[in-house]
Amino acid sequence: MKGNIIMKNGIENGYYHEITPQGFGLVIKAKEVLFSDNSPFQKVEVFESDSMLGRVLTLDDLMMVTEGDEYHYHEMISHIPMMQHPCPKSVLVIGGGDGGTVREVLKHKTVEKVVLCEIDGMVIEASKKFLPTVACELDNPKVEIRVEDAIEFIKDKKDEYDIILIDSTDPMGPGEGLFTDEFYTNIKNSLKKGGIMAAQSESPVTNHSEIKKMYEQLHRVFPIVSTYTSNMPTYPGGYWAWAFCSVDVEPLKYYNDERANEIIPTCKMYNKDYHYARFALPNYLKNLVK
Amino acid sequence: MKGNIIMKNGIENGYYHEITPQGFGLVIKAKEVLFSDNSPFQKVEVFESDSMLGRVLTLDDLMMVTEGDEYHYHEMISHIPMMQHPCPKSVLVIGGGDGGTVREVLKHKTVEKVVLCEIDGMVIEASKKFLPTVACELDNPKVEIRVEDAIEFIKDKKDEYDIILIDSTDPMGPGEGLFTDEFYTNIKNSLKKGGIMAAQSESPVTNHSEIKKMYEQLHRVFPIVSTYTSNMPTYPGGYWAWAFCSVDVEPLKYYNDERANEIIPTCKMYNKDYHYARFALPNYLKNLVK
Repeated sequence: MKGNIIMKNGIENGYYHEITPQGFGLVIKAKEVLFSDNSPFQKVEVFESDSMLGRVLTLDDLMMVTEGDEYHYHEMISHIPMMQHPCPKSVLVIGGGDGGTVREVLKHKTVEKVVLCEIDGMVIEASKKFLPTVACELDNPKVEIRVEDAIEFIKDKKDEYDIILIDSTDPMGPGEGLFTDEFYTNIKNSLKKGGIMAAQSESPVTNHSEIKKMYEQLHRVFPIVSTYTSNMPTYPGGYWAWAFCSVDVEPLKYYNDERANEIIPTCKMYNKDYHYARFALPNYLKNLVK
Repeated sequence: MKGNIIMKNGIENGYYHEITPQGFGLVIKAKEVLFSDNSPFQKVEVFESDSMLGRVLTLDDLMMVTEGDEYHYHEMISHIPMMQHPCPKSVLVIGGGDGGTVREVLKHKTVEKVVLCEIDGMVIEASKKFLPTVACELDNPKVEIRVEDAIEFIKDKKDEYDIILIDSTDPMGPGEGLFTDEFYTNIKNSLKKGGIMAAQSESPVTNHSEIKKMYEQLHRVFPIVSTYTSNMPTYPGGYWAWAFCSVDVEPLKYYNDERANEIIPTCKMYNKDYHYARFALPNYLKNLVK
């Protein structure tokens, strides 16, 4: 086609573009760059969009969080595993420096402590300053923030957490070491009896090879591995998957109605029917995660 | 922001853009325009994308069908209502000139006749020529193609169809008259006893006011109105809703396992668990369609 240009990810001429290796992606009208800097790990940027999405946080010019649709992701990564534990007290969030996952976890009154292990302090600081509705619980006294590499952090932990949520970037760059057999084994060892890990597991639409590899790893490490999905408007294909893994907890066998009844009125997405429906997968995805 | 340009929908400089009034949207790498013409109703265009989406059909520079993700839509609009009818013989498809819905409907061996009522013959011809995997059943002898306005076509029909599928464009332009109380009343009258209508009902992410208005209309006309949703990667927000309406059929009360067992192996998405899960809605959408 004549006159082709090569569109780069990031903001140019008033538009943010993010095009996947599969040749399609997301465009957002941008109003103003509020923050842009390089941490030791990645480029961290926040811009004000001219859209229903509000403010947007990107890392290395890849979409992480928008004010307008973040609840699609944060309600799913947290409440789906949390409601399947009778009394989650001790929670570890890996990545998730924006604070959205921590905010949802703290809706569960049983929780006594949340450790947030985020490698990049700049993500936490930028989120506190520019995404206050997302980062709003990061100063809660129940939260312990550890700005360090989760690979090292998890190594000596045994029998410590009821719930571990891996709210990481993709399996490239700073997040790469979070997608290995060794890391998952350490996660498994750090779970208490009856503990559950949920981990973001990429886009079923565009990340077939990444999903296949990740689930092969998870099946080698965890006796129980399941998958749930939900709509995520600003992630590739508008569709996202999470892994549900445990040594001893089968998915959808237990549900805590008491906490659910308190939390559902605070959620834009999450409810009990929606919870159960998340584990029904389309044929092509069943095949990828088996 | 300095240097802003106004990005128009359509193809320019090797990229197709479609930005919603909500300020974000879709970008696809384009390779070659295969067809572009104005019918009496709209601009009809087919391009070869440089992406996993393959060929793309747009109407008035709005996304209609891609070879790469069309099954997300066509399996849902058809099999969800069809499996809830014990013996669908007579089916009407309104719009859907690309033929994808007809292709899925004809997988049900009970079907004796499918009427395709599409206002724009150019959509049918372009699809036959450039989207053969989608339009492949349009010459099936069970299919009667009526190139005419469904508003007029449906007026004198009484007690004729087991299933009616409204596979229309948005409630603007040629599709506008398909979103009225009068049209829905004529649809209701043309359904046989035990008949079901399913209609595309826009994006839950971006079309809140359109969804609210449409469901108010449907509730005025049909005693039974329900909603189901699924991932649709190239539609706004990656998420789409369909209305399930009937005079006498409650959703999820009946399921035809015999036909399901034949058809599921031919589908990339559709299976029985996925079918049941489609009717579990996020809180914000429950509120819009009530």
